[in-house]
Amino acid sequence: MPLTLYRRAHFNAAHRLFRPDWSDEKNREVFGKCSNPNYHGHNYELIVGVKGPVDPETGFVMDIAKLKQLIKEQVVEPFDHKNLNLEVAEFADLNPTVEHISEVIWKRMRPFIGDHLNLEITLYETPRNFVTYDGP
Amino acid sequence: MPLTLYRRAHFNAAHRLFRPDWSDEKNREVFGKCSNPNYHGHNYELIVGVKGPVDPETGFVMDIAKLKQLIKEQVVEPFDHKNLNLEVAEFADLNPTVEHISEVIWKRMRPFIGDHLNLEITLYETPRNFVTYDGP
Amino acid sequence: MPLTLYRRAHFNAAHRLFRPDWSDEKNREVFGKCSNPNYHGHNYELIVGVKGPVDPETGFVMDIAKLKQLIKEQVVEPFDHKNLNLEVAEFADLNPTVEHISEVIWKRMRPFIGDHLNLEITLYETPRNFVTYDGP
Amino acid sequence: MPLTLYRRAHFNAAHRLFRPDWSDEKNREVFGKCSNPNYHGHNYELIVGVKGPVDPETGFVMDIAKLKQLIKEQVVEPFDHKNLNLEVAEFADLNPTVEHISEVIWKRMRPFIGDHLNLEITLYETPRNFVTYDGP
Amino acid sequence: MPLTLYRRAHFNAAHRLFRPDWSDEKNREVFGKCSNPNYHGHNYELIVGVKGPVDPETGFVMDIAKLKQLIKEQVVEPFDHKNLNLEVAEFADLNPTVEHISEVIWKRMRPFIGDHLNLEITLYETPRNFVTYDGP
Amino acid sequence: MPLTLYRRAHFNAAHRLFRPDWSDEKNREVFGKCSNPNYHGHNYELIVGVKGPVDPETGFVMDIAKLKQLIKEQVVEPFDHKNLNLEVAEFADLNPTVEHISEVIWKRMRPFIGDHLNLEITLYETPRNFVTYDGP
Repeated sequence: MPLTLYRRAHFNAAHRLFRPDWSDEKNREVFGKCSNPNYHGHNYELIVGVKGPVDPETGFVMDIAKLKQLIKEQVVEPFDHKNLNLEVAEFADLNPTVEHISEVIWKRMRPFIGDHLNLEITLYETPRNFVTYDGP
Repeated sequence: MPLTLYRRAHFNAAHRLFRPDWSDEKNREVFGKCSNPNYHGHNYELIVGVKGPVDPETGFVMDIAKLKQLIKEQVVEPFDHKNLNLEVAEFADLNPTVEHISEVIWKRMRPFIGDHLNLEITLYETPRNFVTYDGP
Repeated sequence: MPLTLYRRAHFNAAHRLFRPDWSDEKNREVFGKCSNPNYHGHNYELIVGVKGPVDPETGFVMDIAKLKQLIKEQVVEPFDHKNLNLEVAEFADLNPTVEHISEVIWKRMRPFIGDHLNLEITLYETPRNFVTYDGP
Repeated sequence: MPLTLYRRAHFNAAHRLFRPDWSDEKNREVFGKCSNPNYHGHNYELIVGVKGPVDPETGFVMDIAKLKQLIKEQVVEPFDHKNLNLEVAEFADLNPTVEHISEVIWKRMRPFIGDHLNLEITLYETPRNFVTYDGP
Repeated sequence: MPLTLYRRAHFNAAHRLFRPDWSDEKNREVFGKCSNPNYHGHNYELIVGVKGPVDPETGFVMDIAKLKQLIKEQVVEPFDHKNLNLEVAEFADLNPTVEHISEVIWKRMRPFIGDHLNLEITLYETPRNFVTYDGP
Repeated sequence: MPLTLYRRAHFNAAHRLFRPDWSDEKNREVFGKCSNPNYHGHNYELIVGVKGPVDPETGFVMDIAKLKQLIKEQVVEPFDHKNLNLEVAEFADLNPTVEHISEVIWKRMRPFIGDHLNLEITLYETPRNFVTYDGP
């Protein structure tokens, strides 16, 4: 299974790093300016990778038009121009660090990706800070 | 005066497009998803250009270390990880469109740039949307 | 009128440099490998700039959602995944150099851009070759 | 063997997604606008990675000047400014999806890369669609 | 341990490829123009990746502010605007190929990264030549 | 004359900011770490723009293959993998600031560009520092 197919997308959102079970002082101490109660935001750049065999019929690992549509439905529409803390259900009680956001995206996408494929999420919070979540 | 020297910087901020003198309905109609009351955000990329003669002593249009420091003091520190609508004074009653943000940055920087130099601001709201403000 | 608003888009197309009134030999001599009769292609990156005053009502030079839609209708849909020589009417007897393509895009867009705005087209044929067409 | 050395290159080509054993209707249904009979094209960006031990004599995994020359001979010269379907032998009866193109590049390069090195091909069809072929 | 957190940084330095135990002629033969005795230089782009579990307290693989500070102290300050051959101790008798530089960076960073985390160094000598050093 | 054609190229070089008629102390005071006597270096990215009418014969402002060759002969070959202070004649007594380097490139290229064309040089010393020299 040596091939991975990647599709890039993007969404713009506000967030803050914050644990409601911590005092404001502790949030500020641990998360610094990222915990600003008035929020800040990012242009998130997302790369979704699917790894597996090439379908001999089509020459595709997966139809990239379908992958593009899935990313739009599962991630871009629910996240774009939103406040992640207030408007994306998973972050009601999960701190929206770039690590957690990538994990949430993986969990949203996974049911729609064939069982014979691995799913890998790369998420850029800025061009300088990013993560890769490489699940089964 | 054929030379322009450019310095790039960046800041991450939340904002919403919004006029307080308009109804919520009209804000939504004109500004669409950009008027989300919970805010969204961007990684703003800023390019500051100063145009003028080369100083024969130094071979510089301007000392780029000083330009870098000025951008930090006048723009990055007051804007980074902030909510532009709530925490940057100029936007208390000015809609923070990318056009207006670039104009505000120009006005903040202009007093610190020599009179013999022109000042040009390019501001990327996303890699796909940006403006250039080319003042005197 | 110091402000220019820019929107980026892209389309993928095949083309060849070719003048039907020249011999194959002369086409090959002047246009080299770019005249390959079987075509080659590019990911064209397009930046459309509109220059003019800021509307005091909206804080916009122009509504970027409208600009995005215009680019889609006038350029991306008719050019994307097409053979420029065979499928875009203007190139039936116009050599599709990057210079001519930018001029054709300018002429297609110009009627839909307000008379109080200037229109500037930047077109990347590759990351290394590009043109700017800066019309009235 | 923790080190991988990468070299980037590029070529511009026309192609269409197409199986000659399928009807035009089925080609259109499965491959959409990518099956346009008049072709479309891309600026392909290629990254070739070779993984293995560092030669203690030179401090190189492999002489990058030799790698650059190999990429030129085996990929860039035969693919650049060509129609992949019509002018690259492997695609006479192989659908030139980005998956298959990366596999063909891997097979062309593999005999010229030392047995002690792994070979990995990353191929961008556009900045948004790409694959990695990670062979032995 | 599916998550890797990445931080990007950069430094500008001069170097030459050179083995003092070889003749000038052999250095020139093996290293070509890269062995120019007067040096040449690069804008090195560095990506440091740390792989491991997410801390359930913070939602971080590692505090990126600490990672940024470590990169500054261990790599950027000692390497930036320096001559690698003459001013960085490890290269007194180690040829500063991009492979060796990445290994030196890995060894400098490793003691400061938690034992439960893997450390990966990607170093761009130019946008076209780069390496990944993926250690334990 | 609304069209400008651009070609991108690059070279890697060492330099230091330095005036031989100043003391070491004054060089250090004015030029900071950029005056390091052991040199540092950059991957210079160069964009050459030629502005003028389109030739109705070819559809070209200028044959980009000729422009590419001129840049190679006049700039890349004499500057690449060189020490600008020691090995490029113009900098024997001219401080190689990015402003001066762009001016030297303009003067080297100008005689080979048609009188009916304007010549514009953009030179990136780093992705964050750059200049444009826009001559006649």
